Order: sequence, then structure tokens, then C-alpha cells
Amino acid sequence: MNKVQIFDSTLRDGAQGENVNFSVEDKFNVMKALDDFGIDFIEAGNPASNPKDLEFFKKAESCPPKHSKLVAFGSTRRKNTSCEDDANLNALADTNVEYVSVFGKSWDMHATEIINTTLEENLNMISDTIKYLVSKGKKVFFDAEHYFDGYKANPEYALQTIKAAENAGAEAVILCDTNGGCFPDEISEIVKAVVSHVSIPVGIHCHNDTGCAVANSLAAVKSGALQVQGTLTGIGERCGNTNLSTVIANLQLKMGIECIPSGNAVKLTQLARYISEICNMKLTGNMPYVGKSAFAHKGGMHADGVKKNPRSFEHISPEAVGNKRNILLSEVAGRSAILHRINEIAPELTKDSPETKAIIDLLKDMEFKGYQYEAAEASFELLVKKYLGRIENFFEINYFKIIGEKSGELQNPSSAIVKVAVNGKTEIAADEGDGPVNALDKALRQALTVFYPSIADVHLTDYKVRVIDGSAATAANVRVLIESTDGKDIWTTVGASTDVINASVIALIDSMEYKLIKDNSRKNS
Amino acid sequence: MNKVQIFDSTLRDGAQGENVNFSVEDKFNVMKALDDFGIDFIEAGNPASNPKDLEFFKKAESCPPKHSKLVAFGSTRRKNTSCEDDANLNALADTNVEYVSVFGKSWDMHATEIINTTLEENLNMISDTIKYLVSKGKKVFFDAEHYFDGYKANPEYALQTIKAAENAGAEAVILCDTNGGCFPDEISEIVKAVVSHVSIPVGIHCHNDTGCAVANSLAAVKSGALQVQGTLTGIGERCGNTNLSTVIANLQLKMGIECIPSGNAVKLTQLARYISEICNMKLTGNMPYVGKSAFAHKGGMHADGVKKNPRSFEHISPEAVGNKRNILLSEVAGRSAILHRINEIAPELTKDSPETKAIIDLLKDMEFKGYQYEAAEASFELLVKKYLGRIENFFEINYFKIIGEKSGELQNPSSAIVKVAVNGKTEIAADEGDGPVNALDKALRQALTVFYPSIADVHLTDYKVRVIDGSAATAANVRVLIESTDGKDIWTTVGASTDVINASVIALIDSMEYKLIKDNSRKNS
Repeated sequence: MNKVQIFDSTLRDGAQGENVNFSVEDKFNVMKALDDFGIDFIEAGNPASNPKDLEFFKKAESCPPKHSKLVAFGSTRRKNTSCEDDANLNALADTNVEYVSVFGKSWDMHATEIINTTLEENLNMISDTIKYLVSKGKKVFFDAEHYFDGYKANPEYALQTIKAAENAGAEAVILCDTNGGCFPDEISEIVKAVVSHVSIPVGIHCHNDTGCAVANSLAAVKSGALQVQGTLTGIGERCGNTNLSTVIANLQLKMGIECIPSGNAVKLTQLARYISEICNMKLTGNMPYVGKSAFAHKGGMHADGVKKNPRSFEHISPEAVGNKRNILLSEVAGRSAILHRINEIAPELTKDSPETKAIIDLLKDMEFKGYQYEAAEASFELLVKKYLGRIENFFEINYFKIIGEKSGELQNPSSAIVKVAVNGKTEIAADEGDGPVNALDKALRQALTVFYPSIADVHLTDYKVRVIDGSAATAANVRVLIESTDGKDIWTTVGASTDVINASVIALIDSMEYKLIKDNSRKNS
Repeated sequence: MNKVQIFDSTLRDGAQGENVNFSVEDKFNVMKALDDFGIDFIEAGNPASNPKDLEFFKKAESCPPKHSKLVAFGSTRRKNTSCEDDANLNALADTNVEYVSVFGKSWDMHATEIINTTLEENLNMISDTIKYLVSKGKKVFFDAEHYFDGYKANPEYALQTIKAAENAGAEAVILCDTNGGCFPDEISEIVKAVVSHVSIPVGIHCHNDTGCAVANSLAAVKSGALQVQGTLTGIGERCGNTNLSTVIANLQLKMGIECIPSGNAVKLTQLARYISEICNMKLTGNMPYVGKSAFAHKGGMHADGVKKNPRSFEHISPEAVGNKRNILLSEVAGRSAILHRINEIAPELTKDSPETKAIIDLLKDMEFKGYQYEAAEASFELLVKKYLGRIENFFEINYFKIIGEKSGELQNPSSAIVKVAVNGKTEIAADEGDGPVNALDKALRQALTVFYPSIADVHLTDYKVRVIDGSAATAANVRVLIESTDGKDIWTTVGASTDVINASVIALIDSMEYKLIKDNSRKNS
């Protein structure tokens, strides 16, 4: 019991969470991040039921993940049909991935009441589907839906569904607590029973409706489960799926069970924040290991104790997961993760260089102001290069003005005026747009293109606004993330301000500067 | 094992969470709400270390809780002094409450390294303190800090600290996983060991640093603990304390262990939202039982299954905890899910009513324009009621104007002017804000409050912007989701437009209208 597989379903079950919507580009970004981190399996969607997912899998053929295995999700065949005639199943079979997950019913009540079939036909559906997919060259995970409720209601039948999957050639069976209503001792007992009955690996898939998804998953591992399914930040239907960031840290760092490549745990916090950004969700502050407050010490005695001996109020070191202790005297926290990123830009700096310390201080200062660089690598690069004096001054904005107006009909062209200066020459441009930021973006690009024609190639591909302190809503500080492309590269920049327009302008400026630096360095190299 | 005490520390340990600050008035409101709900013990602060807490306890003398016992918190006496000379301890003794909690060290390392004393003096500190407080007429809970880490390091010594407390006259000993690093099986084993060694009740106090606080507390109860400590919404130092809303629902509704007066579980959701409101924090959407998404079904098949048989995708009925089922309308939800939501508003419509068809067509049309009602149940309700002609016209916006300007310094007050009309009377208001939407929101509320004073209670708790077609960015359509509250309810509205300002205004108008309809229907019913 020293290796467990991690199976992430952010892009499939996670996408069923309230307020979660991924574009195809978002899905790629999540996949790449999970792949870099070393997640074993990435379930990316249902190609049969969702055109967006189909497009994703098509695109993924040309740039598949390097480490992770991509998994397509679908269901067993319909009742009383043949697999050959089932369009959804054929769509799944035709998807260009090695692994598929198919879910089927293990709870007798679901077979008879929800899909209205016989218990026997339900077993045939499981068996036929897996055999069919195996014959098409797929490796098949069988998701035994409602396994625990099913087992409690009718243990013999629940086991039969699992045996049907095993006999049909499934790679593994995944026991799902679909309703999320179980407790650890129940999970333990039932997983043990299944493990003793099958010879293929058993996995666990929990939901958090009793607040026990993590503990349930750990109980399953202790009882012999070899794969843990969940979503990296815990998003998913209702109360969410098992939070994998918590499970991974628990297994890898506390229980001595390997589940990610060794050394990668330090990237955990950054990964969770990046994925949250793509989901356009605020990462819960007190989320174990990766939350902003996870290592925040407020009680005076706690802060004091931690300084005397970190073990006194921390069960693990924040650096181990790339997070930071949040008291003034611990400036070293998170340093190695930051150093890693600094070194990508300035390889000659070491952890003891004065520049490194100064950049880390600067970063803290910016974070205090509301910036976050997890997902804004271009702004981070600019920050470091600016500090090191490696950037020329491409342009300055003398002023801008935006106007938005509505009366009568629902027409409301926002308009903007901007004046920029480049080497003493100025240019004033105005434009209108579909919102003040769009108008400003167009005016700014118009003015800059006069001096730098390549700016005409840039356009924005995503624009995200986040209120930093949720409790004060629009009156609070605002963070804007802008994703841009020139058709060759994609980069993300960040701006923070008390004013959303100002935050947008800061991110727009970074985006333009990044483009100009990028072009410059290509010319020079 | 059919009765467990609940001990809430929202006002003490909860107040140590990042971003949590209570005024004395806030503390009273929390106390009253917990008391009404039937919590056994309310730990309300440390009168010795905090003047605000001292003031609270003074004020509480005149209007104490009816059901709950108020508890004051403090520490054991200082090393090498007498209790009589310890000002903090005397402040605790002088506090006019029957119950006090005192914490002391059970981890040998903490005694020797953090407070720098001998193991023997640490035992004396525990014993003397409890005897002294008992002599002053107090009932004393002993909080055995770091009990589990202490037990793992030196079980004999850890047990001695507990025995010292018992022998000195403590009412109960509370085993604290202060660093929150434990797993359920460790908790289980150690609680059992303690229970077998003492004859007074044992309590459990966990933190959520491994994501297992709830499971750990349940494991302790199963091992003989008779009191669960935590905070109602899980706030607290670092990753928070045990979430009592989750524990209470698990114990009372699923495990058959009484912990609140029977019948009160239906008030749980409202209580959690109210306390969150006082804390000025957004209640996590996917919080078990009480979160806005806790019973939200998005996948088409889930939505379908729940209608056939709620048990199929719900481990418990949302009504049992005073929450609501929420069938999310999304690309995955089918016609029947939409009908279900229409029926909540207009029960007389069937799937064949011409109105149903017309509303579904209207919905498609709105979705085509960029609206999404999945998370915006308030806007959906307005859409249906408006179509059915069941809404009076509360107000109209004649015009609005926003201005944003920047030159030189990074100061950029956005300002807004708005003119509204109500029954032929008009009102013009202007305000500035931290961005055009904030300025507009403030001006609009100012103008409307003249006609509808209850609008003053509304404030925004979240504001999200999403570019609908990622590939066209700010030039594309924009969707805005606004979450609002009046302290009692939480509702979400949506606006979509080519212009972010306009989309925001649409969502703002819906939010205000929803509030007015809600108040109206309460008056009428």
C-alpha cells in the first residue's frame, strides 16, 4: 500500500458544479496544469453528450498530455439495445483516447425505478458495454454509481454488478458514493468487502455532502482502494467532489503513500490557485493546505508559539505544499516556489541573492495590494524584469477618459479617449466599444499601433473580474485577469485596483508591454 | 450514546479566523441566534485578555441566553505563581457565568519548550487553576491543548494532565486537536484510551487542517466523546474549526444522536446564513447541508433522477435542514427540469400549457442572448412572473450616465448619475464609487430608497463577470451575475449585454425588483 493513483475529474464532474463553465481553451489550460503536476488520470468530459467536449477531445489529439492519461466519460448502453446501435457508446468508442470511464447502476432501486429495467438487463448493460469498448481497444474503468447505497440495500446485487464489470474486462472498478451521504466506517467496511471479492484494482469516488469526502477517501485507501477520484479544488455537483488537493497532501506528506511524483507537492498551492482562477472562482480561504488562510496565525500565542517551534501550531510546514505562513516574521515561506519562478526568468539568481529577497518583498507588497500572479505569468515576468532593469520604457499613458450613457433604448455605446506618449511623441485616439474596457482597449491599441505595428495582431481572448474581498462586493478591491493572444502565443496579465476600470487598464498595459518585449527578444535572439 | 452536547466557539475560536471581527452587538446577535436554535454551550470570549469580551460578559448579565449556557474562556495560571496573584485568572473567576473553559498543556514538548517549565509544574498549573475556579463556584471545562500530538509523543504524560484535571474537580475534559493534523483512526484510538481512564465526560475539539475535522469529531463521538466543540459555520484559526452545522445535521438526522432540540434542524440553513451575515463573510456555496449549492442538481440525469425519486441523488431531504432543492438550468438540463422550476412559481401550468411552451421559447431566446439562469434563480422567477403578468411595475430607469477619468496620479473616482421614475414621480441621484458599477449601484439604491425604504437593507455579496464567447473577449457579449442579500435571504440575478455596464444594470434592476416582490409577498401572506 505505498502507491495510489489520482484521478481528477475537474473537467467532467467538476464542470457539473454550480457556476462552473469551461471553454475549450479553459479545458486545455486545466489539462496542461494537471499534467505538469503529475496527476495520473484526467477525466475531461463526455464526448457523446456535449459538443464542446467532443471539440476538446478532437483538439487534444494534436497535443495530448505528457504524463497523464486522458479519460473520456460516458454511460453504459441503453436498455434493450445492442451496443452497435448505441450512438453515444459509439461516440465514446470513436474518441481517440486509450482510457474511458463508463458509469452504470449498482443500486437495485436505480435499475428498477430510475431506468425502469430488470436487474438482469442492468447486468447485461454493464457487461455488454465493457466488452464492446474493450473490443474497440479501450481500457475501461467501471464507475459503480451509488455503490454504497446499493450495497446497503442489496449487497449481493451490488457485488454482482462489480463482478459483471470485472468479468467483462474492466481495468478497475470505482466505487462511487454518488449522493455523498456516507461516513468513513461504512466506506471502510464496504470497500474491504469488495476488495476481497475482485482481483482488479478498486477505486473510490466520493462527494462531500456529509463533509466527510476526504476522510471517506482515506478510509477507502486504508481498506485497499488503489485509486482516488475527485477534483483538485473540490468543485462538483452539490457540495462538491472529494478535494484532491487535500487528499494528495494527506497521502503524500502525512501517510507516506506516493500519489504524485516526489517533489511536486511544493507546487500544490500554485496549482490549486491556478485552477480556481480558470474556473473564475475564489479559492476558499480556509481550504486545507492551499487556502490563503491555511497557515495564518492570528491568536498572539499561536503566532508566538509558531516562532518558537513551527510544530507547535502547524501540523505540516507550509513550504511543503508551496503555501505561506501568514505572520510577519516568516518571510521565508513559499520562497522556494517563488525562486523557482524567478529562476525561469533570471537563472543566475540564487536564494541568497539580494535581488531575490527584494523581488520576494516586492511580490508580497503587490499581493497585499490585491495582485495575484499564480495565473498571470506574463505580469510576473514583467515585474521581475522591471525590477532587474531589463525592460525599456515602451510607452506611457498620459490620460484616459471613459463615458457610458443610456437613455431610452437599450443602446449604450461606451466610448473612450486615450493619449499615449512614445519617446516624446504623443498620439490621441478614441473609439467606442461594447463596454468601457473594450472601448479603452480599442483606443489604446489604435494609438500604440502608430508606433508599434505588431500591436495590431494582439487581441484579448478572456477577461475575468474578481472582487477580492467578497464581503464588500463592488465596493471592494477588484482584480482583473486578461488573457491575450497574437495568434502565436497566449499570455495572461493581472491588474488590481479599487476601480475595475483602472485594474483593467493596468492589465491591458502589461499585455501590450509583454507583446512588445516578446517581439523584441525574438528579434535579438 | 443517544445524546451529545454541542459547544459553539464562534465568538472565541471563530473570532481568531482571518477576516473575522465582532462588535459587542454582533456578539449578542450571534449568542441570541445560537440560543434560539438550542446550542448547549456558547463560548463567548476571553474576559481577561480582551476588553471587548469583558464588556460583552458585563452586558450579558442583564439578558443572558435562555437555553444555552454561556462560557468564558481563559488559560491556566502562569508558571511559578499562585492563583490568587494571577490577574487573568481572577478576571475569569469574577466573570458572572456558571461555566468557564481553561486551556492547559498536554504535550510535554509544549510545557518544556513553549512555556519553559517542568512537566511537574505544568501539572500543578492545571490542578491549581481548576481547584481555584471550583472554589469560586465555577463549573470548569479543561481544554487539553494539543492532546493528540501530546499523546502520540508521550501517552503517559498526556494522561496525567487529564487525570490532574479530573482530580481537581473539572466537569469535563476536552481533547483538542489544536494543529488540526489528525485523522479519524488516530482520534478514535486516543479518545477510547482516555474514556477508559477517566470518569468525567470527554469532549472533542478539532481543526480542519487535514480536511477531516467533521469525520474526526464523529469518530470521537463513536469512541465515547459526549461533547463536540466547533463553530457553526466552521470559521476559526487557519483552516477553521469543526463545522458544527455539518456535525449537527450528521448526528441528529443521520446517526440518530440527539444534539439539538428535536424539530430545530429545519432552522439550520437560516441560522448558518444569519451567522455568516453577522461575520460579514460569504457562506461557502457548497457547504454541506446549508450552502446555496448543497442541493443543486445540474447534470441532466441527476435532475431527472431526483424528480423520479429524490433519494436517487439526495442523501437527505433539503427541507429537513431548511434548505432548498435547486434544479440548475444549463445546457445539460432538459425540458422536464425547466418545467419543474416553472411549477415552483406557477404550479397550475402543465407541460402542455401554451404558457409553458411560450416560457421555454422565451428562455431559449434569452439563452441565445447570453443569459444563463442556472445560478440566477431570482432572475428566472422574475422572467416567468413577468411573462405571466404577475408583477407590478415597481420603477423605471429613465437614464443613467457613468464617467471614469484618469490623468496623472492613480486616482480615478468613477461616478454615476441615475434618474428613476416611480408612479410618475422621479428621483435623480448621483454617487461615486470604486468602479462604474459600484457608483451606479450606490446611486440607484439611493434613488430607490426614497420610494422603497427596505432597499436600504440590500447589499451585494458577489459580483461576477464572464465573457460569454471566450474567443472574442471584451468585444463579445458579457454576462454578469450579482449575488445580493438583505440579511435574511440570498438571491442571484443575471444580466447579459454587449456592454458590461449594461449587463450589470440589468442584474442590479432584477435584484432590486426581486427584493420588492419578496417583501410584498410576505406582506400579503
